[in-house]
Amino acid sequence: MLITRREEFSASHACLNPALAPEENRALYGEDSNPNGHGHNYVVEVSIEGDPDPVSGMVFDLKRLKAVLHRQVIEPFDHRFLNREVAPFDRVVPTTENIAREIWRRLEPELAAEKARLHRVRLYETEDLYVDCFE
Amino acid sequence: MLITRREEFSASHACLNPALAPEENRALYGEDSNPNGHGHNYVVEVSIEGDPDPVSGMVFDLKRLKAVLHRQVIEPFDHRFLNREVAPFDRVVPTTENIAREIWRRLEPELAAEKARLHRVRLYETEDLYVDCFE
Amino acid sequence: MLITRREEFSASHACLNPALAPEENRALYGEDSNPNGHGHNYVVEVSIEGDPDPVSGMVFDLKRLKAVLHRQVIEPFDHRFLNREVAPFDRVVPTTENIAREIWRRLEPELAAEKARLHRVRLYETEDLYVDCFE
Amino acid sequence: MLITRREEFSASHACLNPALAPEENRALYGEDSNPNGHGHNYVVEVSIEGDPDPVSGMVFDLKRLKAVLHRQVIEPFDHRFLNREVAPFDRVVPTTENIAREIWRRLEPELAAEKARLHRVRLYETEDLYVDCFE
Amino acid sequence: MLITRREEFSASHACLNPALAPEENRALYGEDSNPNGHGHNYVVEVSIEGDPDPVSGMVFDLKRLKAVLHRQVIEPFDHRFLNREVAPFDRVVPTTENIAREIWRRLEPELAAEKARLHRVRLYETEDLYVDCFE
Amino acid sequence: MLITRREEFSASHACLNPALAPEENRALYGEDSNPNGHGHNYVVEVSIEGDPDPVSGMVFDLKRLKAVLHRQVIEPFDHRFLNREVAPFDRVVPTTENIAREIWRRLEPELAAEKARLHRVRLYETEDLYVDCFE
Repeated sequence: MLITRREEFSASHACLNPALAPEENRALYGEDSNPNGHGHNYVVEVSIEGDPDPVSGMVFDLKRLKAVLHRQVIEPFDHRFLNREVAPFDRVVPTTENIAREIWRRLEPELAAEKARLHRVRLYETEDLYVDCFE
Repeated sequence: MLITRREEFSASHACLNPALAPEENRALYGEDSNPNGHGHNYVVEVSIEGDPDPVSGMVFDLKRLKAVLHRQVIEPFDHRFLNREVAPFDRVVPTTENIAREIWRRLEPELAAEKARLHRVRLYETEDLYVDCFE
Repeated sequence: MLITRREEFSASHACLNPALAPEENRALYGEDSNPNGHGHNYVVEVSIEGDPDPVSGMVFDLKRLKAVLHRQVIEPFDHRFLNREVAPFDRVVPTTENIAREIWRRLEPELAAEKARLHRVRLYETEDLYVDCFE
Repeated sequence: MLITRREEFSASHACLNPALAPEENRALYGEDSNPNGHGHNYVVEVSIEGDPDPVSGMVFDLKRLKAVLHRQVIEPFDHRFLNREVAPFDRVVPTTENIAREIWRRLEPELAAEKARLHRVRLYETEDLYVDCFE
Repeated sequence: MLITRREEFSASHACLNPALAPEENRALYGEDSNPNGHGHNYVVEVSIEGDPDPVSGMVFDLKRLKAVLHRQVIEPFDHRFLNREVAPFDRVVPTTENIAREIWRRLEPELAAEKARLHRVRLYETEDLYVDCFE
Repeated sequence: MLITRREEFSASHACLNPALAPEENRALYGEDSNPNGHGHNYVVEVSIEGDPDPVSGMVFDLKRLKAVLHRQVIEPFDHRFLNREVAPFDRVVPTTENIAREIWRRLEPELAAEKARLHRVRLYETEDLYVDCFE
């Protein structure tokens, strides 16, 4: 069984690889490479896998999931320009793929420490584009 | 191939384990444990797995799926206080997880009798919280 | 200019007029009259009318709007059985119309005291049914 | 990792198997069998599986995915009566299942030629009915 | 106070004025002028204006509104090719504007006969295009 | 009658009045005042008022509305940091209110020149916050 919780954060990003020349970034990312950044209302869905506890009827305490998600993701990412203010996006291009993977890396060890198995991180950049990360 | 049909029902629930003391229920479920209940517009998605029939082009007749879903779930659950009016929620805490599992138990045998393989029951309590049940 | 903020709360209600006989309530409200109640994820939209302040560029400080809305509506209504726990719904039938009007009555004086003109309260019972209240 | 892009198209269809008698089509498909057709705002989601490229941070260039999707699906299907104007729906009943499978068949070879692994085609006929196709 | 109810229907239309030459229709309506038609999941919202009844707490009985809406609009329009099967669209171009106005004309007298004041008909052709009709 | 068209753009903004001290901006706008900016998927709805033309059945040609909206708003605003790249937001704080009013100012004269009466600009910053501008 999977239980999934959704949260939103608003952030800016620029798709720019600092190892590439400006014209290479422009060719690769188009208008996403504007160095001033542009922004999205990102939606993140976190899925935990497990069986409902026989006493509580819950796979995992949602209050604890919310606390981990806020501490590791929403608070550091929300209202930030990711490339300038959130590691490792000073050196890792904050594509939707890389942001989703970073969210996985921030959540998985904390959830494992609480005996929760993280199954999937889904990240919507817009309603029309999303990424699923399983590791 | 999977085909999925979505339906809604409105119901009340209280997250209360009758085997626990009130303060234990309060610690476990917070405001969800209010014994008067509170409610949701639940959304249920039922997914059937199979290959499209070569004549009809359909995995399963959606009119029959709708009939089973209404008889087994929508009619008994809609406009009810689950803890008081729908078995087994007089003794099983109606968390989203347990409601989803009960929906699976009500649908699977009827669908199997009609040669349809139930793949997943997804239940949204709100837009921000859902459960996937695969057995 | 209007600025509108949306919030959600989950509550139970029963459409029952205590002055009517059970069969009259049944005739009037159908399955909504189940005295055990059923529930919804209500969505409330509050619209303030005004001109943007020349310094702040804001019609009204959204932090203050949120504070009033939470204190007057979300906290008392959320996770409650309205008929039993929230006045005046012990004697006023909590139809969508009457809940919207009660929200207006709770918000308007507090907002007026903060020099904000309340223009509209919109209340969604489901995605398919909503009420607009202007006084 | 999966990356998914969503697009819409508006089309008409009639669920009619030309090999069946009118009354058989009526029994099988109900009002969907009206030979004049009726229509939907179809939503298609295309998911590509892979690892983000270490330089670009992308699983697949979304500009190329969009180009393939438009050339193979959106342009030929949008604003068409599928049964009369889009092969093979002159002889294959355009159920949601068969349309999704045809979209897979049109996309998979082109994407494979660009070294992209197609994982899933999801097709919504309405918000309440969708199909997932994996081959 | 306004109460609004939402319903959906699926229909085909072609934007073609029979009084114009094909190239004029093409210039005016673009791909919408394909005579085979294309389709949409139309969403209609019907708003009734009034005060809540002091006994029922309702502006208008929603069961009666639903009955009128189904008899006058959903049943005749759903799963139809409007130009060929629904008057007056054999001679009136079924643009979103004209469909909305026709819905008003079908609903207003029946609702007036039931003492309900129709305030607005809103018709969505897609999520990105809608029309509001007030007479 | 009103016809409304919806479009999206992604942009960054910072709520900062250059005439105020940093601590005043912080007190006024909270985390919105981060000078690096943060972003949103803005949704803009443009409503035109009029009667359907007797020949075309249209209030206004949607292809022309789309052209004006793209040239005046979507192209200059999309993928930009509004404070740094789009006048007058170098000196006018880009609150939702001020962005909506600027959209009105950019659209109204062009639409008037095409004989279209602009009725309303609605701007969503998120699903939970929007502004309506009527002049």
